[in-house]
Amino acid sequence: MVEIGIYGACGRMGRQIQECLEFDDEARVSVLYDKNGNLEELFKKSDVIIDFSSPYGTNELLEFSKNNHKPLVIGTTGLDEKVMKLMYNLSKSMPIFYATNMSLGVAVLNYLASKASIMLKNFDIEIVEMHHRHKKDSPSGTALTLAENVAKTRNLQLQNIRISGRDGISGERSKDEIAVMSLRGGDIVGRHTIGFYEEGEYLELTHNATSRATFAKGAIKIAKWLIQKEPKLYSMNDFLGI
Amino acid sequence: MVEIGIYGACGRMGRQIQECLEFDDEARVSVLYDKNGNLEELFKKSDVIIDFSSPYGTNELLEFSKNNHKPLVIGTTGLDEKVMKLMYNLSKSMPIFYATNMSLGVAVLNYLASKASIMLKNFDIEIVEMHHRHKKDSPSGTALTLAENVAKTRNLQLQNIRISGRDGISGERSKDEIAVMSLRGGDIVGRHTIGFYEEGEYLELTHNATSRATFAKGAIKIAKWLIQKEPKLYSMNDFLGI
Amino acid sequence: MVEIGIYGACGRMGRQIQECLEFDDEARVSVLYDKNGNLEELFKKSDVIIDFSSPYGTNELLEFSKNNHKPLVIGTTGLDEKVMKLMYNLSKSMPIFYATNMSLGVAVLNYLASKASIMLKNFDIEIVEMHHRHKKDSPSGTALTLAENVAKTRNLQLQNIRISGRDGISGERSKDEIAVMSLRGGDIVGRHTIGFYEEGEYLELTHNATSRATFAKGAIKIAKWLIQKEPKLYSMNDFLGI
Amino acid sequence: MVEIGIYGACGRMGRQIQECLEFDDEARVSVLYDKNGNLEELFKKSDVIIDFSSPYGTNELLEFSKNNHKPLVIGTTGLDEKVMKLMYNLSKSMPIFYATNMSLGVAVLNYLASKASIMLKNFDIEIVEMHHRHKKDSPSGTALTLAENVAKTRNLQLQNIRISGRDGISGERSKDEIAVMSLRGGDIVGRHTIGFYEEGEYLELTHNATSRATFAKGAIKIAKWLIQKEPKLYSMNDFLGI
Repeated sequence: MVEIGIYGACGRMGRQIQECLEFDDEARVSVLYDKNGNLEELFKKSDVIIDFSSPYGTNELLEFSKNNHKPLVIGTTGLDEKVMKLMYNLSKSMPIFYATNMSLGVAVLNYLASKASIMLKNFDIEIVEMHHRHKKDSPSGTALTLAENVAKTRNLQLQNIRISGRDGISGERSKDEIAVMSLRGGDIVGRHTIGFYEEGEYLELTHNATSRATFAKGAIKIAKWLIQKEPKLYSMNDFLGI
Repeated sequence: MVEIGIYGACGRMGRQIQECLEFDDEARVSVLYDKNGNLEELFKKSDVIIDFSSPYGTNELLEFSKNNHKPLVIGTTGLDEKVMKLMYNLSKSMPIFYATNMSLGVAVLNYLASKASIMLKNFDIEIVEMHHRHKKDSPSGTALTLAENVAKTRNLQLQNIRISGRDGISGERSKDEIAVMSLRGGDIVGRHTIGFYEEGEYLELTHNATSRATFAKGAIKIAKWLIQKEPKLYSMNDFLGI
Repeated sequence: MVEIGIYGACGRMGRQIQECLEFDDEARVSVLYDKNGNLEELFKKSDVIIDFSSPYGTNELLEFSKNNHKPLVIGTTGLDEKVMKLMYNLSKSMPIFYATNMSLGVAVLNYLASKASIMLKNFDIEIVEMHHRHKKDSPSGTALTLAENVAKTRNLQLQNIRISGRDGISGERSKDEIAVMSLRGGDIVGRHTIGFYEEGEYLELTHNATSRATFAKGAIKIAKWLIQKEPKLYSMNDFLGI
Repeated sequence: MVEIGIYGACGRMGRQIQECLEFDDEARVSVLYDKNGNLEELFKKSDVIIDFSSPYGTNELLEFSKNNHKPLVIGTTGLDEKVMKLMYNLSKSMPIFYATNMSLGVAVLNYLASKASIMLKNFDIEIVEMHHRHKKDSPSGTALTLAENVAKTRNLQLQNIRISGRDGISGERSKDEIAVMSLRGGDIVGRHTIGFYEEGEYLELTHNATSRATFAKGAIKIAKWLIQKEPKLYSMNDFLGI
């Protein structure tokens, strides 16, 4: 039985992971950790720790890991460079997995989009994401990762070419710009479309999450996989073997 | 044989109308008018005049019509209130048809969207339009008309609630806001989607023009219909009989 | 507090309705009835009864209602003409609501599709529905109702024009045929698209249920509405007031 | 100037290629060949020959090529094994390119779909294609090629698992089946969607041709590329370098 510690246990994702583990035959919750929890107990009782907290929380977790090596699955978004660097340094001593979206489908979407971006190099790229009415930030981290990936294949810096809206007389579309448009409404879990457009044809790739449990299940699967691994900073591509 | 005068003959739409009339058994071009043309000849030789010019051009046309009554089909976009009022006044003396999009499908989309907006009154509304990479203005006139129509059914002023992009920590979606997002790429003639989103379900209505000739053919059909009509300012709803 | 009896309480929909009523402030479960339950108790303790059972079960329920008048919300599919007629006769003595799909969005989809079918009378119609991999029958009752509605607007009998697949050299599409194509896969709750296609343009209307609770919530809303009504056979259009 | 011979010059694709060559700076029509044309002249005056004829026509062309080596671009569909084998044998003496769809986007769609099929190995696969109302055969050759490609990645024979419709009580979806559904209507040039569906998420890849010229332009591009090549039987993957 794999013992999984949940760091950020009271957040939306933390609770989802708990629920999914109730029906899991191979893994179970070791310790639920949230603010004012006991880090020593969390590390001692867990084979692997899943973190969906906050940039501040992730920093605390990593600081504590300096002297307490344990496989970590990190899904917290909005991390700054300092934390990313700390994560990288620690990954020399223990396996750390990091991704902004842990669904298999989104990982495949990223992979396919990068391939398409290279093969369809004269095609215009546009991205549309849609989430439920309660989402507070735009665009989604998943959409930004997708945009960064395709920008990289064309040797472009996303911050120079990303557009988040069009209004007024803006002139013809420039070849390199990438719009990342955010729709909000209803209870949509997460829908991402990336399109490639050229004279005469276009190609659109859409991922749709039909359940919030998708991401929790993905994180659990990755946690089980990670405990067997050597120290290194792993990504979805490593998990998928691509 | 219906004699159709084309005002704005060198523009994209003017040329399309010419091409479509070449294959028409019931109507033909009487006079092609563009800058420096002969207005008297245009009015004298035509049973009906189709105008796809510019706000300035439409104003000229209407001024001349004060003393020269002739059925007019007007598809020029971006007209200001002064011109709209002049059009309205002149329509007491001759039939004038005005619409920002002359395809049957877009007219039906507007009708259905208004009905849906009333029946699904708690649903969030979002609009996405896509056009070819050469389109210079955003959003499309068609998308704005669509947004205005649904806003009206909810007693909202579009200028207070329209959003053309989302970026950063914008907070939860407000109930009334309507995003009108503009995508650009490839050679897409015109695609408009209006969606209605609620907890548990959503409804999306999409119109897609597969050929630029669609709009030209619509204008010609309307021109043939208009010559039989009494003086009045007509809209797509009149043409459709709804 | 509205007392709701659930007839077919152990079925998928019966259980969903129970779950939704747990969070309802205005209504609650009176009696859960399944095979070998007590019909007298069900009728005595309930203000209204919701039935998602089987054609056989619905027949039993209606037979018992002959001498026990109570508002009934019936969502069972696959009813034969005999049962439909019995339902109709009983509705002279008590309010009965019947629909194959109780989501608001699907009702609106049906309404809009009928309007579009009339206004776009030369457009070809095609329907595609998608449901999860466990669904055993095709096409969905909802898709068939949709197809019947649009066929009726064109004075066509669905059984003469419905197509459920195309394979081989079938020749050009006939003007009146309507394909109703069934896709199956994953855990999709229910997605229905009806499209209208013509030279130059097309219009597609898509409804997507994002949660199974949508249908249960719809049935509960209708049950609350029905208890105030006069004896009559009601449909979704009555509920929507269209 | 590349001299391109068109074999099957009076067919829909033959005429499209002619039209596109009128605006080409690097290539032009050498000989238009249709029934009763002069094969010797065709071969003598052309640097490369593009064939969109019929299975019978392609066989004639290949037979003549036995003693007349010339680069051939073949897009005729419905070829039987005998012709395919002849093509393969001849490709030892001259470069031959063969594909059922010559658009770049469809080639990329095939590539991405194969990758996705491997990476998402537990996902259900469904394919939907849509073409104009005049198309006489179903499914499209492009949809069949797509289905064959993904079936191959899962070690399945398409003829054992392909479904072209669902109607009645068919039971739960089997894991391996692939529906290839054909929609017909309006003037749609060609739209292909392949979807991958699993509990919690799905991925859909859609290619849309917006103009018939897309395929003609693709064939011309390939013809120019082929004249430089060594004898071999080439496919879209060779052309794309993947």
